[in-house]
Amino acid sequence: MRRDGEPAPDVYGERTLLRLELEYDGTGFAGWAAQPALRTVEGTLRSALDGVFPRWGGLTVAGRTDAGVHALGQVASVEVAGGPPLERAVGALNGQLPEDVSVIGAGAAPPGFHARFSARSRTYRYRIWRRQTPCPFERRRSLFWPRPLDEERLAEAAALLAGEHDFRAFTPTDTQHDVFVRTVSACSWEREGDVLALTISADGFLRHMVRTLVGTMLERDPVELARLLEGRPRAEAGTTAPPWGLYLIRVEY
Amino acid sequence: MRRDGEPAPDVYGERTLLRLELEYDGTGFAGWAAQPALRTVEGTLRSALDGVFPRWGGLTVAGRTDAGVHALGQVASVEVAGGPPLERAVGALNGQLPEDVSVIGAGAAPPGFHARFSARSRTYRYRIWRRQTPCPFERRRSLFWPRPLDEERLAEAAALLAGEHDFRAFTPTDTQHDVFVRTVSACSWEREGDVLALTISADGFLRHMVRTLVGTMLERDPVELARLLEGRPRAEAGTTAPPWGLYLIRVEY
Repeated sequence: MRRDGEPAPDVYGERTLLRLELEYDGTGFAGWAAQPALRTVEGTLRSALDGVFPRWGGLTVAGRTDAGVHALGQVASVEVAGGPPLERAVGALNGQLPEDVSVIGAGAAPPGFHARFSARSRTYRYRIWRRQTPCPFERRRSLFWPRPLDEERLAEAAALLAGEHDFRAFTPTDTQHDVFVRTVSACSWEREGDVLALTISADGFLRHMVRTLVGTMLERDPVELARLLEGRPRAEAGTTAPPWGLYLIRVEY
Repeated sequence: MRRDGEPAPDVYGERTLLRLELEYDGTGFAGWAAQPALRTVEGTLRSALDGVFPRWGGLTVAGRTDAGVHALGQVASVEVAGGPPLERAVGALNGQLPEDVSVIGAGAAPPGFHARFSARSRTYRYRIWRRQTPCPFERRRSLFWPRPLDEERLAEAAALLAGEHDFRAFTPTDTQHDVFVRTVSACSWEREGDVLALTISADGFLRHMVRTLVGTMLERDPVELARLLEGRPRAEAGTTAPPWGLYLIRVEY
């Protein structure tokens, strides 16, 4: 548990391993991971946990999203003791959270559950606003791209991504990753009104991977993309698309 | 034209009567109507017109929305001279506008067109967020109402609104209106996912009318609503629902 020097947990009753489902608008956050002097989702959630549970610890998250990236189905796990009963935890946490982050579900997790390491699959969506004019309700929520796009070519590129590839070209050179191979289980572009969106599921994602895949798909031919999937250096891939089009939408366990 | 003391309009060529279609997120605006020292949509559009057209005047709008109210299909008319050709007017204006307001269409209007007086029908939508937990992407864009609602009763209330009624009970007492009778041509609630929305079309709307209708429908029985439609005093109707759920979505001519 987090706070040393406090009474033993049994004073507060049983420990419970919670699985939390979260939504957040990434605009006002310097990403998930807590950083000194910066407003982060993790830091904000920690403050809310402090306000609701006498003791808690072991906070982990499925996807450590970057600054500006949104989430609709982020999953966190945390061990708590004391505090409100499970059925009131969601309301109590939301009472402590600011408007740009919301707990949308809380449940008891099976023993050993770990939001990050237990995840089998993560799904991200990248939204592109395809009208000729910007939309005030889409600012910071999609990439405004009024220029022509060949949607057939994009579909072809998305199809290439399915399967196991070396994604070294799609993550910064100064990386913390050791293994660059990931398995994409589904990848497709879909059009809904003026929004064109890429939905991609994989066992895991490298840092900036979805954004760099999107940037590259917007700029390059599928033939070039195919070549980049064989573990080419970062410099050969395209631009990293901006964070505000990206959403972590689902995690599967 | 607006600017006195400038060269005669023929120096700049023909005058054109423009019909502009606008979207805006009302959150950051003190409503449509220009007011000294306040950020308004009209004031912001005037600055953009100043930046694009050497001469312009006679700016009018279909619906003078209140502070915090949004628009997806607002219509304005303005006479311009000089400036870019019609096909470049949208891009030029958006180049001058901030991100929370966008011109989504511009066309030449028929002679005598007046955005306000030529309008035959206006349509507003009021959006209610019906999940038990708030959504970060819905803040300032819908009314969060997690409490139970009887949707059949709401449908009944909406059906009562169709036709000609005296809406005196649904506008502030210190009103500028002389006539309180309006004709509602369509009114219904529709559910889409977690959003429950009222869409209402009428020849015209009194100030706060949609918001007070919504507030009353959420609190009262349809029987009471029916009685209020006979020109009762304001004090007998319900609360005025907050502005951030309301959108002007369409104007017909």
